[in-house]
This record gives sequence, structure tokens and C-alpha cells, in this order.
Amino acid sequence: MAKQNIYDNEVFFEGYKKLRDREFNANKLFEIPALFSLLPDLTGLTILDLGCGFGEHCKGFIERGAAKVVGIDISEKMLEVAKAENSAPKITYLNMPMEDLDKIEGKFDLVVSSLAVHYVDDFAGVVKNIHNLLNPGGLFVYSQENPINTSHSGGDRWTRDENGNKIHLNLANYGVEGERESEWFVDNVKKYHRMFSTIVNTLVDAGFIIEKMIEPMPDDEMLKQHPDQKDLFHKPDFLLIRASKK
Amino acid sequence: MAKQNIYDNEVFFEGYKKLRDREFNANKLFEIPALFSLLPDLTGLTILDLGCGFGEHCKGFIERGAAKVVGIDISEKMLEVAKAENSAPKITYLNMPMEDLDKIEGKFDLVVSSLAVHYVDDFAGVVKNIHNLLNPGGLFVYSQENPINTSHSGGDRWTRDENGNKIHLNLANYGVEGERESEWFVDNVKKYHRMFSTIVNTLVDAGFIIEKMIEPMPDDEMLKQHPDQKDLFHKPDFLLIRASKK
Repeated sequence: MAKQNIYDNEVFFEGYKKLRDREFNANKLFEIPALFSLLPDLTGLTILDLGCGFGEHCKGFIERGAAKVVGIDISEKMLEVAKAENSAPKITYLNMPMEDLDKIEGKFDLVVSSLAVHYVDDFAGVVKNIHNLLNPGGLFVYSQENPINTSHSGGDRWTRDENGNKIHLNLANYGVEGERESEWFVDNVKKYHRMFSTIVNTLVDAGFIIEKMIEPMPDDEMLKQHPDQKDLFHKPDFLLIRASKK
Repeated sequence: MAKQNIYDNEVFFEGYKKLRDREFNANKLFEIPALFSLLPDLTGLTILDLGCGFGEHCKGFIERGAAKVVGIDISEKMLEVAKAENSAPKITYLNMPMEDLDKIEGKFDLVVSSLAVHYVDDFAGVVKNIHNLLNPGGLFVYSQENPINTSHSGGDRWTRDENGNKIHLNLANYGVEGERESEWFVDNVKKYHRMFSTIVNTLVDAGFIIEKMIEPMPDDEMLKQHPDQKDLFHKPDFLLIRASKK
């Protein structure tokens, strides 16, 4: 099974770091607030963060009262930054792919993952392992690229008017699941497209109860400050789910 | 609240009846098999069918062992056909909109609805009433137009190549929920678009557990017989959900 580690690619890493450092980006405006809105009270919880990257969320969880956080990431370069910038006695960073979750010992109250699972081929396997790692009643809260977004399989994403404004998304192959190759700082970043129904059924089949789903959209206030975000009405970037262990 | 009764429009009724009578249509190929695949063993169950139309499903439920079926429809013309063609002692047909479910007495083991809820503005209200009408552990199994389908808000649905083949769906306003006017045999058929997340959250908030979701796609066998159905990969027509009462 391919375990993709694009984040250790020098070009990708630098491009990605610059994007995340920008004052406004889609993560900061939409994905992170939506993710945190789905979290329970973290006081005293043990938390596992899948694809923790620079470790900002791990640090944030501790600041909100978590008892213990384990952050895993396939990229050593990302974890170097995490250890340098977001260390804490209650945080452990582990360099491993999330396909190897069965090697983790212990149980958690909460598993979180921010924009990482769409890089994983065997989503069902990962979800099953997450279920095993959770205490009864435990929560899995995660974000991924929206299926309307991951379906993209080449060609122009958008149709534009003569002024370059986006009129509509060119949606194709939503019903064809599996690998997608795309360019994002570097060539051949592999993502995996799954339909909404497949995502829901995979969680349910593993023993999860779907509690809430968010596809973030800009409100009037947001549109006043960031008018370009209106394109989200045509193409939701993110999908966030909170699911609980039966 | 508008309760839409397009099916009593003479032109619509005739056009719709012809479509349903065709040997192959999207309902017969995809929607009906998917709907029935989500049903439990019907032996001895009491069933409510929302938007029962011509009553074929009501009759089918009795043939599969249901103890009692109530079929409701807003259209008297549809129910006239139902009573003439699909009567049975165990079936009761009621002429009423599904927005008035609170007027129905008794409890049911199963509520079914085939391609009707996307005509309803107050989905949350309907779902709440369905939950009230179900026995504990009861099921709500329904189909609707897929959100990728209902999002359409005017203009060309498709971009085609020079030979007229569909290349991609022109997807716009997925994130803008609410009323859509479209032409389907007659002008101004009103449908209501809701995002996947809204549908899921509405069911969960009413006290349902999502058990399974289907977005029907053609398999190789189907494509051999009906090659034009490949367009479903770009635009799923249907969404089906089985949810249980907590």
C-alpha cells in the first residue's frame, strides 16, 4: 500500500509553509473554525491527532485543557517544525503514517484529523483503526477536502466569463472513486476521491454514529471582508464530520 | 407554507405518466432497486408511504408481507390511479400533503418516501413529524434527487463536446440552499435544494441515526445495456438514505 509523503518533498514543503503562514487562507477562515466548533470540552481528554503537521492543533488542545496529546505525521520535516515550535510536556510527536495506526498502544477519548485523510487510499482501514483506538463514546472529528472538490480529475476546474470570474465548476467523474493526481506546488500529489455516500457508509460500517457534518460556506460578514470567497458557493472546499463510537 | 401540487396539473400528469410507463427509466433502473435494497423484512410491518403516487410501492409492500400500508399524496389525480390500479384491503390512500403529517394518527414501523421530499420546503418539519410517527427502532427509508442535481439554478446543465456528448456538469450554487424553479413537462416546478450536510444534520437533529446512504451508479453490466447511463458518473440523479429512530 502506498503511503504518500509529499510533505518531505523540499519544494512542496516550502510552498505549503508559505501558504499556511498567510494571514488569510481557506484553512484559517473556514476549516479551522469549523473543526474546533465540532470539538467537545477538551478538559482532561486524551487526544490523537492524525497528520498533525506543524503541531499547532496539538498545542491548542493542551491550551484547552487536554490531559495528553499524541500527534502523528508521516513527514519528519513537518514534525521538526512541530517539535521546535509547538512542544509541550503533555504532547508526544510520532513520525508514522496513519495507515500504521494499529501499532499505537492505549486508548483515546478523541481522534482529530485536519485535512489529511484524502491522501489515504485505505480510508476504511484507517477508520476501523480509529474506532479501535477510541474509548466507548469517544469522538472522531475530522476535516477533508469536500467530495465535490476531490472529484476533479484533470482539465479546467472552472468555467469563467470574459472577465475571468468563475461562473460554474466543471464537475466530472464524481461517481468514479479512487486516485486523483494533481499539481499542488509539485507534480503528482495523490489524493483519493470518495463520494459522500461512501464516506458516510465507511464510518457507519466501522461502528460510528454520524453526529454532525459541516460544509463551510461564507456568511455576509465574511463576504464583505473576503468577496472572493463567494466561489465556495459553487465548490465547497471542505467537509467536516463529527462521529461518535457506539 | 406553499404545498406544491404539480401532479394535479393535467399537462404534468400526462407527461409524468408517460415517463413512468417507459420500459427503462432512471427510476426503474436505479432508484427503485436502491430503495428496495434499503428496506427491512416487511413481514407484519405497518408502513406509511409519503408521496405514494400511483401506489405501486404500497401494493409491493403488501405483497412482501406488510400488515398495513397507508399511502398519502397531495395529488387526487395520482390517487385515483392508485385506487383503480393498486387497491388492496390492507392499503389506505389519503389525499393530503406531507406537510400535514401531524394530522395522522397511530404509529408506524417504517416510513418510506420515493422522490418526493425535494418538493418540500420545510424538510426539517416533515422529518420531525416522521420521527414522531415511528415506533422506537422504526426506520425512515427514502429517496430524493441528489444535491448535486437539485443545486441546478438555471442555464445549461451540461457542457458538451462538438458531437453533443456530455463532458461535465456545470455545477453552480451548491452552497445556496432553497427554492429552485425548473421546467419539467410544465413551467415553474418548484424544488428545494439542500446540501448533503443539511440533509444529514436535519435527520440527526430530529433524532435519527443514519444507517446507510446510496448514490446509485451504473455498473459494467448496466453500462453495456444502457451506455447513456454513464452520464451518472458526472451527475448522480438520486440520493437514498436509511435512518433509524433512536
